[in-house]
Amino acid sequence: MSFDARAIIRTKRDGLTHDPTTLREFIAACARREIPDYQASAWLMAAFLRGLDAAETDALTQAFLHSGRVFDWSRLGVAADKHSTGGVGDKISLVLAPLVAACGVPVPMVSGRGLGHTGGTLDKLESIPGFRTQMEPAAMAAQMQALGVIMVGQGPDLAPADGHFYALRDVTATVEFEPFIVSSIVSKKIAEGARAIVYDVKCGNGAFMKTREAARSLATRLVATSRAMGAAATACVTDMGWPIGHAVGNALEVVESWRVLRGDRVPGTRSLTLALAAEMVHLAGAAASRDAALAAVTSALDGGKATEKFLALVHAQGGDTRALEHGEPFHAATAVVELRAPRAGHLAGCDCFSVGEAVVAMGGGRRAKEDAVDPRVGLVLTRERGAKLAAGEAFATLHLAAPDAAMAARVTACFTFADQPPAPLPADLVLERVTG
Amino acid sequence: MSFDARAIIRTKRDGLTHDPTTLREFIAACARREIPDYQASAWLMAAFLRGLDAAETDALTQAFLHSGRVFDWSRLGVAADKHSTGGVGDKISLVLAPLVAACGVPVPMVSGRGLGHTGGTLDKLESIPGFRTQMEPAAMAAQMQALGVIMVGQGPDLAPADGHFYALRDVTATVEFEPFIVSSIVSKKIAEGARAIVYDVKCGNGAFMKTREAARSLATRLVATSRAMGAAATACVTDMGWPIGHAVGNALEVVESWRVLRGDRVPGTRSLTLALAAEMVHLAGAAASRDAALAAVTSALDGGKATEKFLALVHAQGGDTRALEHGEPFHAATAVVELRAPRAGHLAGCDCFSVGEAVVAMGGGRRAKEDAVDPRVGLVLTRERGAKLAAGEAFATLHLAAPDAAMAARVTACFTFADQPPAPLPADLVLERVTG
Repeated sequence: MSFDARAIIRTKRDGLTHDPTTLREFIAACARREIPDYQASAWLMAAFLRGLDAAETDALTQAFLHSGRVFDWSRLGVAADKHSTGGVGDKISLVLAPLVAACGVPVPMVSGRGLGHTGGTLDKLESIPGFRTQMEPAAMAAQMQALGVIMVGQGPDLAPADGHFYALRDVTATVEFEPFIVSSIVSKKIAEGARAIVYDVKCGNGAFMKTREAARSLATRLVATSRAMGAAATACVTDMGWPIGHAVGNALEVVESWRVLRGDRVPGTRSLTLALAAEMVHLAGAAASRDAALAAVTSALDGGKATEKFLALVHAQGGDTRALEHGEPFHAATAVVELRAPRAGHLAGCDCFSVGEAVVAMGGGRRAKEDAVDPRVGLVLTRERGAKLAAGEAFATLHLAAPDAAMAARVTACFTFADQPPAPLPADLVLERVTG
Repeated sequence: MSFDARAIIRTKRDGLTHDPTTLREFIAACARREIPDYQASAWLMAAFLRGLDAAETDALTQAFLHSGRVFDWSRLGVAADKHSTGGVGDKISLVLAPLVAACGVPVPMVSGRGLGHTGGTLDKLESIPGFRTQMEPAAMAAQMQALGVIMVGQGPDLAPADGHFYALRDVTATVEFEPFIVSSIVSKKIAEGARAIVYDVKCGNGAFMKTREAARSLATRLVATSRAMGAAATACVTDMGWPIGHAVGNALEVVESWRVLRGDRVPGTRSLTLALAAEMVHLAGAAASRDAALAAVTSALDGGKATEKFLALVHAQGGDTRALEHGEPFHAATAVVELRAPRAGHLAGCDCFSVGEAVVAMGGGRRAKEDAVDPRVGLVLTRERGAKLAAGEAFATLHLAAPDAAMAARVTACFTFADQPPAPLPADLVLERVTG
């Protein structure tokens, strides 16, 4: 098919709606570089400013999806996955993937690296010595067959058109646009072979979606587009106004995840993991109800099956778990500083975005794609949200590459203290479920 | 200066106003290819959809202007020029340039080729055997010194950034945007050295501006931006709802121009030429009033000085005027067909756009930049607008490369006949003047 790219750009420029087939073929031709980037980027800006409807978003998703390999795990069952829009202290995937796999549901999890103030699952996994996140398709298939779970980075042949468009969006100031975000996320989940997808749409000061309305809108569109691609999907809008669990920072989050696997009831981390795992197991058809699914995943976590699966997964991907298993120091930071309450009162609020930025500044995240990440650094909350503290009482520890009083002050300033305790959050942090 | 191109794109995407210096430097960096085209084109679309204000338009114009050579004719006087937004049968420049030069005002006229349904001065001039429209700067200077007039195409060093942006606009559906049109036109006029500029903004079914409001808006902005660049400027909004004069087609328009020079009072062509020439002479300060300027240009035309200057100009640029001077056939078409009134009535309306398109279809214009133009073809009206005709009476002749009955029917259908004569037009076609 030969394109009049100008006519397609003009259509969107004028606020008209694309024929889905034409749009799909236009995007595919852009990704094959048959249409130059300067035309693709003019279209990106026109779409950003004029909008794309549901059918157009689906067409974009299909174009991304079919630009590369699409995995099929149907011989193993209905594959499930979870996608989080990114948070602070969001280590949920580390326990979730082996937990769901331990319940007999295949989990072909493809994750990303840290972005801006949020951490990335790959960075966390790679703080486990030897852990490999790049796998060839044949090795992925073999491990899925053997263990029912993989945790890997996006290979070059998975939705490559999305990669091309993401790079163009990045340099043309067209990143923050819901239909682009949705098509990018959903195409990769469908391409990895997931057919039961749970979206964890974070909401609050530590999330990309600051408001409940924006989070709900994104959640609704993620579910709708996933269904249009033939997958079962649910989205949970969850609180991101307080760090998830206790730890923020790569190795520190792995340690917390291990403790949750070993039975530690870390608030937030354990209950959100169980809630999202139950959604996945139920969506994949491996439990008759959500209640039954929750019972199944709780039993798999508490009975040790999730730990067993986690260890098998880490070993299969080259990771060394001896330190974790023996409770030995695991990437210990050279400087650990206590953060103390500057006044008496309840630990009431947290500017999670600034906490995330501070951890990046400590070396725990990236400013540029090629930056190395220091796995050791981060924050561990030693007191819970709402705890009543005396002035000067410690509430957290900062793990640093070197002593840094300014950083301790900076992170302390991210927290607010109040005379009254804050309104409680749901135990599993789920503010609402969006099912379509 | 190093640019955060993304931040600049984001500014316009969000509907904010650019700092003029930043915008000028951004555009200059795009033109030097220090910023990739895919970022320039995202900005083009954002500007197209969000708008650019007067200061931003001026900044764009300055960036284009200073991307190349800027001619200075001040040693010869205040140089004047006219720019038309493009019409059907618009041969005004051919008489105008030598006429104004004959009044002692330097005219460094840089013209374009036919675009879409409209003709181009260069194509018309090149239908004169041997006429050269490409000149080196040194030759331009020598001829300006000797004759006070040149009629040339845009050289590669005149506002090259405009050329780069025009090519990008063309492929990204961002052509039809007033601030882009204004900066493109004005930067070239200022770069060629004109400091007294008259804009002929066409309005009507044969013009790019279909409505009076759109024409007036463009006229106002052309004048304002020209003044911001330090030039005197006036715009005339002129009727383009009827072909100008009698002829449409390259050689046919040269013949009509020659007849006007020789004293023929071709309606429209003569009076519009005089009106625009008077504006130029007055703006350039070579006459104390517009009335005095009109008297001067009328006398130069009727006294033969314009003809003298025209012949000197054509000879200087290599053209052979013998056929014109001897009244011999000049690129005679092989087939001449009379168009006849399909009904009795007044010659009342003309779809000029379709006439222009038909002449292109006959071979008289370009579909692609590299197409050759057939100088012979076109239309000559033998009866005036409003003339009362019997059914079957001839009103025009079609000059064709070969007999073509379908084309005759197509062009006849461009005209409407009515029981009542149409409302008269101003003799000089000027609907209004915009002086700022």
